[in-house]
Amino acid sequence: MSRFDKPILVFQTDFTYAEGAVSSMYGVVKRVDRELEIFDGTHQIPRYDVWSASYRLYQSMPFWPEGTIYVSVVDPGVGTARRACVAKTADGHVIVTPDNGALTHVARHIGITEVREIDETINRNPDTRGTAVFHGRDLFGYCAARLASGIISWEQVGPSYPVDEIVMLPLAVPAVSGGVATGIVDIVDPNFGNAWTNIPFALLEGLGVTYGDRLRIEVRHDGTLVLDEEMPLCRAFGDVGPGELLAYTNELMNVSFTMNQSSIIERYGIGFGAGWDVRVSKAEG
Amino acid sequence: MSRFDKPILVFQTDFTYAEGAVSSMYGVVKRVDRELEIFDGTHQIPRYDVWSASYRLYQSMPFWPEGTIYVSVVDPGVGTARRACVAKTADGHVIVTPDNGALTHVARHIGITEVREIDETINRNPDTRGTAVFHGRDLFGYCAARLASGIISWEQVGPSYPVDEIVMLPLAVPAVSGGVATGIVDIVDPNFGNAWTNIPFALLEGLGVTYGDRLRIEVRHDGTLVLDEEMPLCRAFGDVGPGELLAYTNELMNVSFTMNQSSIIERYGIGFGAGWDVRVSKAEG
Amino acid sequence: MSRFDKPILVFQTDFTYAEGAVSSMYGVVKRVDRELEIFDGTHQIPRYDVWSASYRLYQSMPFWPEGTIYVSVVDPGVGTARRACVAKTADGHVIVTPDNGALTHVARHIGITEVREIDETINRNPDTRGTAVFHGRDLFGYCAARLASGIISWEQVGPSYPVDEIVMLPLAVPAVSGGVATGIVDIVDPNFGNAWTNIPFALLEGLGVTYGDRLRIEVRHDGTLVLDEEMPLCRAFGDVGPGELLAYTNELMNVSFTMNQSSIIERYGIGFGAGWDVRVSKAEG
Repeated sequence: MSRFDKPILVFQTDFTYAEGAVSSMYGVVKRVDRELEIFDGTHQIPRYDVWSASYRLYQSMPFWPEGTIYVSVVDPGVGTARRACVAKTADGHVIVTPDNGALTHVARHIGITEVREIDETINRNPDTRGTAVFHGRDLFGYCAARLASGIISWEQVGPSYPVDEIVMLPLAVPAVSGGVATGIVDIVDPNFGNAWTNIPFALLEGLGVTYGDRLRIEVRHDGTLVLDEEMPLCRAFGDVGPGELLAYTNELMNVSFTMNQSSIIERYGIGFGAGWDVRVSKAEG
Repeated sequence: MSRFDKPILVFQTDFTYAEGAVSSMYGVVKRVDRELEIFDGTHQIPRYDVWSASYRLYQSMPFWPEGTIYVSVVDPGVGTARRACVAKTADGHVIVTPDNGALTHVARHIGITEVREIDETINRNPDTRGTAVFHGRDLFGYCAARLASGIISWEQVGPSYPVDEIVMLPLAVPAVSGGVATGIVDIVDPNFGNAWTNIPFALLEGLGVTYGDRLRIEVRHDGTLVLDEEMPLCRAFGDVGPGELLAYTNELMNVSFTMNQSSIIERYGIGFGAGWDVRVSKAEG
Repeated sequence: MSRFDKPILVFQTDFTYAEGAVSSMYGVVKRVDRELEIFDGTHQIPRYDVWSASYRLYQSMPFWPEGTIYVSVVDPGVGTARRACVAKTADGHVIVTPDNGALTHVARHIGITEVREIDETINRNPDTRGTAVFHGRDLFGYCAARLASGIISWEQVGPSYPVDEIVMLPLAVPAVSGGVATGIVDIVDPNFGNAWTNIPFALLEGLGVTYGDRLRIEVRHDGTLVLDEEMPLCRAFGDVGPGELLAYTNELMNVSFTMNQSSIIERYGIGFGAGWDVRVSKAEG
């Protein structure tokens, strides 16, 4: 078997590179099988933020080759009773993660076809049994490496359980009513300062919206108005001047909004997740 | 063909790892050709800062093996009319980048021998045609992967255009006159706090300067004096005490200055690029 | 020889990715031997902090395969008279580092079996002899790559010197007396905000402590009390509520303490290293 018959491992965590955890975790993978390829998805998921873990899986995993194993370790409940699982997705990827909500976006938008609970008696690193605080190294990374290398089969991950038992975060469904598309701010980009909704551009097209139209966008947090502005729907950021507001279609084909070369999330104090409601409509006049 | 006959891909962007963009971009590369090797140049170029992108190419690319493909995506004009290009350098590297000034330092100091505009009808990912905001994933990374894997030839990148049409940022030429070497602060190191000029150490040697001499260094920003200090020219930071000023020859053999184990750029508020003028001379007495 | 017969190179530095140094350093490795595998240990060691470099080696290196070459470049004395060395560890790893204290924890806890001073006449990059400020690229990375690729033998690194000449930082030995275990805060996690002592959990077990017991933990900095609290000894962070104090056994089986989903080091201003004394005992009553 060539090393390229073995799936790639991509890791995303909230560990950062500020201490030695990522290195220890990757070292264990290479001890299991020197040939495995490892990539950083990101290690800058906001601490304990399962929602962001869920969103980043949905955002990035589909672009990797079929069979890629994505290991996601945002695990505030490490060592407690939450399930550790391995899931197969409808588009042919594999996710290793605590079952704590991190599968929400993938389950909703891509689909999970099968899920197994990791059997710790087989797939937990026997060298580190005394500690229960680092399952990224001792359980998730170790199990993923054994699966990728072919040391264990899919069945040997552990017992299967019903897909509808997967822990799901509440995820508002985008909708259209009376000329208004509604949804939530599903995520923000903390670097460029953009806000991404969960409203597909196709919904806006159904309202007769085209590029060049002006939109009215309202954002409320738990009912309190945070932003209420009109802005053009553009193809590119550079279609407006620096600092000007614009709406656009993001890389996942969802309605998004920002300020050109500036941060709309800092300017307006915009967050994301449940309770961050968005309304989008054609501007009047 | 062995995988090591295929060039390495090195990526530098202003994306950071704070969201999922780097992972998506790398996934696309591995979907094009699983065998390709990918390295982070850096993803912490300051946002929209084409000057820094240009400098980092000049600083790091020459140390990679001949044939290495460096993909640089600092692209405030993504989706607008700026050219997307692939350039061959005089020292045998390949750069994939928006033609927005990012080739300036390499063109000046190393040389560009040929440049082609990427033909989007061939070299844009057909899966993601609806969005125009993520050319790192959909155009630059995808095209670079196809070129590295041998799926397209150099000619199939797209049409060649004259090297003298490459967009160049204004770059002051270092000079010597009346015992004074003049140039600019070409870049700073935001981590260690050093300031690097574009004045080759060889110019100072021409003025009779040797290690151990005291230098007078003046920095002006758009004509306003920011720093005017005397300091020794040292071989090593540790040749002066912690917190003391020193000049030295940096890793690219240019005159640089800093405070030992401290930040001269924070202490004096020093920036870089056009308008950050430097004068270096032997100290009097 | 297959590429997998060549050791992995893992790099840890205080360079960050904010400028081009890591990329240049890795490029040199790939120029020496295209087949070598490179991993980031971390490039976020606090600037000039040799203690942290020493700790991170001890924390992460043992999890990598035998033979792995760990290159550590935290080098405030670059270019001065400190030795550049390559050390073999008792658990079969190799460390390339300035001999400035960075070997302290490994020497104490794992053991160094042999150490050689790098012969700069052989193992310094001949292309960059004019500058003395970037030994990560020009000496440590270059030498490590030559050793990993088999271009030089272990003996050709340079002359051996006595292991007891290795520069050691003062490292307090944990002890038990009168029902109290004493040691230091050996490191903190700047991301999750945990404090890790150098007191093995086994010492507490010797005091009759078991999970579920309440501990009294005192921290003094150069004699001044910084923290004096009682908290339960838990197996998992989630055994207490968010924001509550707990002690636990960390991933290296040492006594540690934190606040669940919060930062004890920010809350109490806790640092690490010599002078950060800790006392741990069973809480009264």
